[in-house]
Amino acid sequence: MKAAQYIKAGEIAYRDIPDTPLGDDEIRIKVAYCGICGTDLHIFKGHMDARVRAPQAVGHEISGIVAEVGKNVSDFRINQKVTVRPLDNCGKCNTCEAGFTHICEKLRFLGIETAGGFAQYWTVPARLVHHLPETLPLKLAALVEPLAVACHDVRRAELKPGDKVIVNGGGPIGMLIALCARAAGGMVTISEINEKRLALAHSLGFETVNPLRTDLVAKIRSETGGSGADIVFEVSGSEAGAKVMTELARPRGTIVMVAIFAKPVPVDLHKFFWKELRMVGARVYEYEDYEKAIRLVADKALPLESLISSVFPLNQLQNAFEYLTASPDAMKVLIQCNEEIK
Amino acid sequence: MKAAQYIKAGEIAYRDIPDTPLGDDEIRIKVAYCGICGTDLHIFKGHMDARVRAPQAVGHEISGIVAEVGKNVSDFRINQKVTVRPLDNCGKCNTCEAGFTHICEKLRFLGIETAGGFAQYWTVPARLVHHLPETLPLKLAALVEPLAVACHDVRRAELKPGDKVIVNGGGPIGMLIALCARAAGGMVTISEINEKRLALAHSLGFETVNPLRTDLVAKIRSETGGSGADIVFEVSGSEAGAKVMTELARPRGTIVMVAIFAKPVPVDLHKFFWKELRMVGARVYEYEDYEKAIRLVADKALPLESLISSVFPLNQLQNAFEYLTASPDAMKVLIQCNEEIK
Repeated sequence: MKAAQYIKAGEIAYRDIPDTPLGDDEIRIKVAYCGICGTDLHIFKGHMDARVRAPQAVGHEISGIVAEVGKNVSDFRINQKVTVRPLDNCGKCNTCEAGFTHICEKLRFLGIETAGGFAQYWTVPARLVHHLPETLPLKLAALVEPLAVACHDVRRAELKPGDKVIVNGGGPIGMLIALCARAAGGMVTISEINEKRLALAHSLGFETVNPLRTDLVAKIRSETGGSGADIVFEVSGSEAGAKVMTELARPRGTIVMVAIFAKPVPVDLHKFFWKELRMVGARVYEYEDYEKAIRLVADKALPLESLISSVFPLNQLQNAFEYLTASPDAMKVLIQCNEEIK
Repeated sequence: MKAAQYIKAGEIAYRDIPDTPLGDDEIRIKVAYCGICGTDLHIFKGHMDARVRAPQAVGHEISGIVAEVGKNVSDFRINQKVTVRPLDNCGKCNTCEAGFTHICEKLRFLGIETAGGFAQYWTVPARLVHHLPETLPLKLAALVEPLAVACHDVRRAELKPGDKVIVNGGGPIGMLIALCARAAGGMVTISEINEKRLALAHSLGFETVNPLRTDLVAKIRSETGGSGADIVFEVSGSEAGAKVMTELARPRGTIVMVAIFAKPVPVDLHKFFWKELRMVGARVYEYEDYEKAIRLVADKALPLESLISSVFPLNQLQNAFEYLTASPDAMKVLIQCNEEIK
């Protein structure tokens, strides 16, 4: 089959590779689309060479159809539309035993620690495959994985209808969180410094703030009788974001830590004490977040098409990474891995 | 009446002052004991002159008996034993309306923003007075207030029997948290660098660690199959404490922020994301924490007598503050405000 393999920092090779053997409990998926995640971009830049065994196809945000099933697999049939929840947990560690299999202490992330979806076919354990409604366009279905991240983040927030919500950072995940939070009844403000992203957020109907131009904390306080926001999603990964999150949240408010901070940053712990704030980390997703994301895509409840900046064919993955690196405005970029399935 | 008033940094005056007028909804309490809180020590050092109107008696950890009741007060009788929950909330702000009256946005703390309990009599709103069992020794009852802090902290932790618990900081509040956490079924380790406090914690039956001598994180990991503690109470207020808390907590573990940090410190937010940690701030107490603390004292469930380092008479408050300032080993110091009631 054809695959676009990561070779080393800045280099992708589009080439023929042998088909992966199909295990008895596995499914071979003919990949329709595979989205580029921020993590894939990190891999492309060479930041994750400790986890990736080059040469290796990466990618994990896929939609596709069943091409072949292992002999123990009974609940999938050829040509059914599917997506993959790419978390291969050990099932034995304390965290798996406590039921939090998505943050397994020995988690293998399919497409990072194993070969991934930037290829014509992807072979994965059947237990990680989710059915998609047959009417669901496979292009939008490639957004199920990042949308499941957003569903997980909103669920961790314990958002209630009417809650005042700040999303700090309007990239693809921030935008999906904003959409999910609004769908759950939240009154959402997006804070972002990139004007193109602000314009997109505005076009999607969100209140937007550029904190370099507007005093975000003063604005939110004035909108909430001085108290602050019910929920703050920190998606910016910036020191400024870590500073403002404790100022924005109301007494007993919630901060959801979505961003990946490369190093410790100053945090005002006194505000946690004084306002009895709650902060919860949120990483990837659980089974139910996937099912929720699939329902949201199937119901056409969210303007997901607006978030797709560009689609490249599989043999252009190198160009797609270079486009993303050069385009801070870009949102989601998809790779089309087999042109004949939709 | 006699009172020991804060005059200015480092200076207390024991003197006669006029009786406070008694409002219709108030109770005049004859104070038996009033404990010295860390906050009182801050006041003595002049750190809180913006909140205290000198000359003013401070102090808020009292036990006593009812001396006089206002004409609207029906549920208290003369000579009944009582204590005070010193949180005078506004009842109107968003946080009060949401039910979190203890962290009211306009909270007046009795004994800080108003005259306090280092005096023969303390006059307070009846709605903030709690009955004590008549058999309860008033000396121990002076510990109800700090014990209610600990009850609140443990309740915020959502501690379950069998949970592995680390208390980082073995001062009076840390020790009370450890006792409450153990009473709730937690398996408690106290981390502290003061050897006298460690010895006290050890004598109370706790596992103790001096993190300057033992690798606390390695020890707790080895005791938990590599995962970490279920609950970490950060009571040290130190940068080292803020660093170790995210290392100690297991995936999906809880950090309770009890300490008062004077300024922002580095926090490893990546660990919040990666392990989906939860951090909750915990400040003072609510009604039910007071009732729980009173039950714990009445049931003689905790070795509270061991935490009382010293008792000074009211006219020696200056000496008591100086003793506490000079004695890093000291735990709780009480001021006896009327010698004839027990």
